[in-house]
Amino acid sequence: MTSPSPMRASACSAAPSAEAQKRQAALWFRELRDTICAAFEQIEDELLGTEHAAMPAGRFERKVWRRADKQNANDQIPDTDVFAAGRGGEMSVMRGRVFEKVGVNISTVQGVFSPEFRQQIRGAESDGRFWASGISLVAHMRSPLVPAVHMNTRHIVTSTGWFGGGADLTPMDFTSAATAADKAHFHAAFKTVCDRHNPDYYPRFSAWCDEYFFLKHRNEPRGVGGIFYDWLDSGYWEKDFAFTQDVGRAFLDAYLPIVRRRMNESWTAAQREHQCLRRGRYAEFNLLYDRGTAFGLKTGGNPDAVLMSLPPEVKWG
Amino acid sequence: MTSPSPMRASACSAAPSAEAQKRQAALWFRELRDTICAAFEQIEDELLGTEHAAMPAGRFERKVWRRADKQNANDQIPDTDVFAAGRGGEMSVMRGRVFEKVGVNISTVQGVFSPEFRQQIRGAESDGRFWASGISLVAHMRSPLVPAVHMNTRHIVTSTGWFGGGADLTPMDFTSAATAADKAHFHAAFKTVCDRHNPDYYPRFSAWCDEYFFLKHRNEPRGVGGIFYDWLDSGYWEKDFAFTQDVGRAFLDAYLPIVRRRMNESWTAAQREHQCLRRGRYAEFNLLYDRGTAFGLKTGGNPDAVLMSLPPEVKWG
Repeated sequence: MTSPSPMRASACSAAPSAEAQKRQAALWFRELRDTICAAFEQIEDELLGTEHAAMPAGRFERKVWRRADKQNANDQIPDTDVFAAGRGGEMSVMRGRVFEKVGVNISTVQGVFSPEFRQQIRGAESDGRFWASGISLVAHMRSPLVPAVHMNTRHIVTSTGWFGGGADLTPMDFTSAATAADKAHFHAAFKTVCDRHNPDYYPRFSAWCDEYFFLKHRNEPRGVGGIFYDWLDSGYWEKDFAFTQDVGRAFLDAYLPIVRRRMNESWTAAQREHQCLRRGRYAEFNLLYDRGTAFGLKTGGNPDAVLMSLPPEVKWG
Repeated sequence: MTSPSPMRASACSAAPSAEAQKRQAALWFRELRDTICAAFEQIEDELLGTEHAAMPAGRFERKVWRRADKQNANDQIPDTDVFAAGRGGEMSVMRGRVFEKVGVNISTVQGVFSPEFRQQIRGAESDGRFWASGISLVAHMRSPLVPAVHMNTRHIVTSTGWFGGGADLTPMDFTSAATAADKAHFHAAFKTVCDRHNPDYYPRFSAWCDEYFFLKHRNEPRGVGGIFYDWLDSGYWEKDFAFTQDVGRAFLDAYLPIVRRRMNESWTAAQREHQCLRRGRYAEFNLLYDRGTAFGLKTGGNPDAVLMSLPPEVKWG
């Protein structure tokens, strides 16, 4: 691809079109958040059968946060505009009867990377200014029979710009027949989307997911994979944005059938205990390895929002 | 201090005296382990009053582990010699009625640091060979009224050599009067030891402890401090070793009275819930910041031994 990237060209000159792209991406992440939250609340309404069906159906609670290092400026910005102004984000958390804890966060932040952090970020080596917007979702389920799930898509602009994201599934029992079926369904949903955009995407992005979500210190995978991509910059902003939108749209098709298949079954105390231990691995991964966690904590993100991904109840053996 | 360090001189030439020092240190850490485990089992026997007094008193279980990257050599070494041969360690874990989970690990490992890791280790920049031995202890208590505690002392030899260690206290409620008394007692015990060796030690090492056990992303301390020291190399191996031994000996005087003061009181479900949330902060610190954890995981340590420090049951809000 030798043609100049419209994104790069516009990001450098801060022309209106670069600003329009940022705005379009940030608004999309918010729209996707609304769609997903509505679908998850619908799942809460559908529960039958298990001991938790007597609980009230969960509802999301929203909380706007502002970047801590912008105290003065923030004081003049109404809560409703913090997100649009690139100064924070919005957490949506639900503690329900199917979703034990699910967070769906959107954020838009801009600033200047610290000199040490700059060397690790593409396009920030000599100019530390950045803009980043995204949606990040982690769901920890009450039932040990229903896998946990993670989905994130993001748009980052430095002196260059790119999209990244993906989704991955974490069953509690890696070896059951149900897990094999869940894994096949989840992967197929994302393969369909990938293949529509580029036949190379699914093989590359599913392998990247396996490589990324791996606990080196235990020599074991976090889950059964999905897709993961980063630094996606084909030279055509619209194409890369369309792919990222489609990954977001595919998420509900990939995950909801898996939830509906098992959510009404009851489980044993031993399965719950095992789930709490498996969640320990999840916490280890997020705190030891996850780049998004490090990025959030180092760029003045709200620690409660960044660490929303941690499971509600965890045991270590 | 311009006189040559006996440790440095001998470490370079691999003379018998360097080997004798290593052996002496490794044997001390094992002896201290035995003393501490016996005292903790005694505490288990003393419990009265709370709902957990009906449980059997806990006893330590021991498990020898060998470094994973030495498979062939290990096969010829009997379990009892693995520790002495610098190829692994011994975990002692007790799940009791006072100590919900306590691990007291000793290990002696030698090897060669990877080129990337070398730059972070004193004296390993050009020669990556190292030898390290130490004791590491973390206790998570059933009662939210009894603080968690951590103690570690170690001797590390590269092209240079030093001692490090310390102990710190983590109450669940930072602001109670009982915590103020516990903190005063704990600090006083280590101040006494420090002052006996060098009047500069306590001011330096207690400030270092506050600085080290701090969660930057939350802008809050992990606990109420204690002492922390590293790279201790006065030029006199015997003096530094004697100080490190005294820190180990002081630990029981510092901690046991705190345990005995509150262990027989009952607590509320709300206090337990709060304890589980505070333990989340403990897990965050150990996985995000702790140098010992990173060292263990990067030098072929046993992940179960390295992560023994993680609390048995944790909640994230």
